[in-house]
Amino acid sequence: MGSVEECMDAAVRVARAAGQVVLEAVKQEKHVSTKSTPTDLVTEADRLVEELIISTLRESFPSHRFIGEESCAAGEPCVLTDSPTWIIDPIDGTCNFVHSFPMVAVSIGFAVKKELEFGVIYHCFEETLYTARKGHGAFCNGLRLQVSKEKDVSKALILTEIGAKRDPETLALFLGNMEKLLRAPAHGVRIIGSSTLALCQVAAGAADAYYQFGLHCWDMAAAAIIIREAGGVVMDTSGGPLDLMSRRIVAAASQEVAGFIVQQLKPIGYERDDCGERHAVR
Amino acid sequence: MGSVEECMDAAVRVARAAGQVVLEAVKQEKHVSTKSTPTDLVTEADRLVEELIISTLRESFPSHRFIGEESCAAGEPCVLTDSPTWIIDPIDGTCNFVHSFPMVAVSIGFAVKKELEFGVIYHCFEETLYTARKGHGAFCNGLRLQVSKEKDVSKALILTEIGAKRDPETLALFLGNMEKLLRAPAHGVRIIGSSTLALCQVAAGAADAYYQFGLHCWDMAAAAIIIREAGGVVMDTSGGPLDLMSRRIVAAASQEVAGFIVQQLKPIGYERDDCGERHAVR
Repeated sequence: MGSVEECMDAAVRVARAAGQVVLEAVKQEKHVSTKSTPTDLVTEADRLVEELIISTLRESFPSHRFIGEESCAAGEPCVLTDSPTWIIDPIDGTCNFVHSFPMVAVSIGFAVKKELEFGVIYHCFEETLYTARKGHGAFCNGLRLQVSKEKDVSKALILTEIGAKRDPETLALFLGNMEKLLRAPAHGVRIIGSSTLALCQVAAGAADAYYQFGLHCWDMAAAAIIIREAGGVVMDTSGGPLDLMSRRIVAAASQEVAGFIVQQLKPIGYERDDCGERHAVR
Repeated sequence: MGSVEECMDAAVRVARAAGQVVLEAVKQEKHVSTKSTPTDLVTEADRLVEELIISTLRESFPSHRFIGEESCAAGEPCVLTDSPTWIIDPIDGTCNFVHSFPMVAVSIGFAVKKELEFGVIYHCFEETLYTARKGHGAFCNGLRLQVSKEKDVSKALILTEIGAKRDPETLALFLGNMEKLLRAPAHGVRIIGSSTLALCQVAAGAADAYYQFGLHCWDMAAAAIIIREAGGVVMDTSGGPLDLMSRRIVAAASQEVAGFIVQQLKPIGYERDDCGERHAVR
């Protein structure tokens, strides 16, 4: 089975190894396909890196379950059970990866009894490692992370992502939410193209909040525990507890900023990650 | 007077030195004030770094003219003449700087007879240096830069910035322009909080276009020549020639992508940088 500590050590090793593969792949020609929409991109590298991560971990932890972005896209079940479960995004920021835009990460979260035990995120271009284990704090390359504690949204830097859906209704909701926060007025809104690295900026105190509709469990699993262990809050966009399968998140340096964002947001509907039908039809 | 080469060597030296001061200042408490709007931020560091850059350069080039973000804010004339002129942004991405969000640059452009001769941009967090001299190519840490040459906007990654104005009309135009490009659909839109570093991503081929209303001559001077020398195009948002004082720009990896963006954009009105009245009323 392996202790949580052994699992986390393995996660760090495989995240670094995977990150090196990603960095090499950035320099080569990319073979790009699309998934749910013309802007939901996937490359051969996504699949290869996920295979590398899962096969490496499965060798050490054969009884564990794995939820990976590309496995789920290929029809594997995306359901969180009580079993020890690895939640993996081999290349977070695939669109950035395709363009060599330098915000790309490997993200590995680990949950037991549906509760996150640790998270590991490797920033492939900067070669920095974000880690957190429940009750043990959050770190970047060994340095302790601490959220900003900002409570005033008018002094807040807020991050978000666009998501793959581009139909007029979705875009109107996305832009409307952004407008409300810009009119607060927040100091600024940033879109960097990697949910996990954006969430790491909140953990590091370099931004004060993050919100998104349409991300997946593999985008938030590792980052959620990193933010919590850095002293921040993560919650559902309704203000309730975070639901990893819900495809929505608000993360912030304080309850106050999170609460303000929750009040402003109009929900954008995305099908849950654990909606079985989604996979049955593939 | 100094040759262009001597000027460029001096620019590189002072940009690196200024960048180190900025990086040190990031770690310290920031004293933030506002300029034109509550979201147009300035810190003591902006003023000190600009003073450092201008005083250093003036010692070597006493007959040259200087246009700097903070000098202009303080009432110095912001007019481009035929004289050799340095165009300086001591801290591009001041809001990022305030939050320690790692996208902050020192930007130094140099024009003679109103034509850009070279540009130097120093990414303070990554400690990388972007440079270009007219007719000599563009480089990042000595490696030649080349735009992506992407012609198809549906495969383009496009960058923009929000600008300091947040009145409802400006925001509606800003978000409307973004919506049109997302519906093209471009691969994605990114907002990183530093015009100069965003433009450098276009030069590096890591993004395919950049557009903005509301930036200043010191945000575009150095970057414009870096993009040109990397094989890209820079133009006015109307499609005409770039006007450094116009507060608007479209930069792209190809005429095709630039032309598409020009067609989509609705203009947002900002007062020109060389509007004398702006300074007279301060």
